[in-house]
Amino acid sequence: MTGIAAALARLPQPDHALRADAGKRQQQLTKPPGSLGRLEELAIFLAGWSRDGTPTVNAAKVIIFAANHGVTAQGVSPYPSSVTAQMVANFQAGGAAINAITGSLALPLDVIPMDLAQPTADITLEPAMSEAEFLSAFNTGAASITTGLDLVILGEMGIGNTTIAAALAASSLGGRGADWAGPGTGSDSNGVSRKAEVVDRALARHAHADTAAERLRCLGGREIAALAGAILAARQARIPVLLDGFVVTAALATLFSASPAITDHCIAGHLSAEPAHRKLLDALGLQPLLDLGMRLGEGSGAALAFAILKAAVSAHTQMATFDSAGVSNKAPAP
Amino acid sequence: MTGIAAALARLPQPDHALRADAGKRQQQLTKPPGSLGRLEELAIFLAGWSRDGTPTVNAAKVIIFAANHGVTAQGVSPYPSSVTAQMVANFQAGGAAINAITGSLALPLDVIPMDLAQPTADITLEPAMSEAEFLSAFNTGAASITTGLDLVILGEMGIGNTTIAAALAASSLGGRGADWAGPGTGSDSNGVSRKAEVVDRALARHAHADTAAERLRCLGGREIAALAGAILAARQARIPVLLDGFVVTAALATLFSASPAITDHCIAGHLSAEPAHRKLLDALGLQPLLDLGMRLGEGSGAALAFAILKAAVSAHTQMATFDSAGVSNKAPAP
Repeated sequence: MTGIAAALARLPQPDHALRADAGKRQQQLTKPPGSLGRLEELAIFLAGWSRDGTPTVNAAKVIIFAANHGVTAQGVSPYPSSVTAQMVANFQAGGAAINAITGSLALPLDVIPMDLAQPTADITLEPAMSEAEFLSAFNTGAASITTGLDLVILGEMGIGNTTIAAALAASSLGGRGADWAGPGTGSDSNGVSRKAEVVDRALARHAHADTAAERLRCLGGREIAALAGAILAARQARIPVLLDGFVVTAALATLFSASPAITDHCIAGHLSAEPAHRKLLDALGLQPLLDLGMRLGEGSGAALAFAILKAAVSAHTQMATFDSAGVSNKAPAP
Repeated sequence: MTGIAAALARLPQPDHALRADAGKRQQQLTKPPGSLGRLEELAIFLAGWSRDGTPTVNAAKVIIFAANHGVTAQGVSPYPSSVTAQMVANFQAGGAAINAITGSLALPLDVIPMDLAQPTADITLEPAMSEAEFLSAFNTGAASITTGLDLVILGEMGIGNTTIAAALAASSLGGRGADWAGPGTGSDSNGVSRKAEVVDRALARHAHADTAAERLRCLGGREIAALAGAILAARQARIPVLLDGFVVTAALATLFSASPAITDHCIAGHLSAEPAHRKLLDALGLQPLLDLGMRLGEGSGAALAFAILKAAVSAHTQMATFDSAGVSNKAPAP
């Protein structure tokens, strides 16, 4: 647990010289300066985390962590917990939305089910995980960040986990259940009120949890601990992370509560339709790339945003310069 | 000219039965209903324009029309008109942003330069084109819509054409130059004021232009007439159109002024940073897919949005249903 705090206290930084070089190159490409908008920003961002200033996303991968949650005993989801394993089987068989989206972008997909038959404890009653369980989950996430990756795209699946994410957001950033609970996979307004009340009870029980690791252990779930482990391990390896929706962003928020600079290697793939996602991104200072009313999880919004990163890299690395193409980049003398 | 009005008066409609079938399929796919947001809308939209209810974007193509404008004599652009031909050469050599973006998405690209050595007349002084010139340009656009395409992605290049687009938007939708003129490729605030004043003079001179064809002939340019021809021909062939930024949307606005249903087969690829683009999309009732601060033209924003359509089609056609995957889609009985 202290290892996590120590790692959060000494995060690697982007290479500012490589960023500056990439910014200069953007000024020389055959387009009015700034006219590619966020594609220019993304190219400069990726250059800053690259080894040699050449941004690449050829070795990108989607990783989905899946887990079950004891808090579902409180009636926080209209779906039974058995759907988590059913959807993992669907991912593995290639039938889910994330398979279609990764297929359309030729992105590899790893699915990591985490003790699905063993839900975490009900957070309204006790800590979700023991220290050993938490560290195992966190380290599973960290271990998923293998060498050679140049971008990691994070997603999740877990019936009940928008309640867990709301509890982590409230614990990390302040506010009550009502500030962070939303419809998730399809709760009605009564369901949302119940989720808010469940979050408030969990917050009261675990008020002592005041480090990132303790928040994740007491209020979290295995997939969210793994997401946090993956985000931190990616940072240590200087690999940028593309975030999916509310649950993945809540995992980042727990680390942010200990070390705000953790967001520096993260890109918000999209704005989810889950109402509190915008508030969460605003608190973290992240601007989403897409806003398509998606609220599925599975990494689906982030995977789709990969197309934007890929285009940003292509433009940065493949476009001609004004000089090489013989294009005028100045108005004629009057 | 009367042929255009006649065509606008009898536009083919989407197939409502195919749309309804696609909507039903979306309810059966392994995801909470509505959770793919606009991807679901896009799949249903594409199904409605398809031959057999199966949406496809395998035969999509980007088409860029390029032309020059006599109105540049009024000092409306900081770039010389020679840049249009230089950029066309850059497109043909593969060095422009649109080449990088289409390359990253494996999209074919057609570039259609239109008499670049022969700018249209200065619209502050006379009609941009004769009837013969206008019809030739319009028909070039229509002829670019070849059989077998399942989606057309429209872009443009033409120094001075945001002034032309502002004039067409004002003539078609109302308002003055100041309502529609913006920085374009990089005018400063003095430049924007000059553009607005140039638009006002052009509007006063061509106040009699009150049909789509006359607006395009008097205030337009060859590439914008071609865009309008392509949009109308695509509709007649029931091929959906993905629109780029301000200039392409202004071409649609001229047709909209005669026949508001013309927007039914059109998708706004992105919201450009050109300030009046949002107003233009709002007037046409179109909601852009992307908002990335881009303002380049060349079809770049629309081409990027193609990735969203491709994913929407993949999800619609490749995802498993609740039945086929054995996933529960109902809460258990209480």
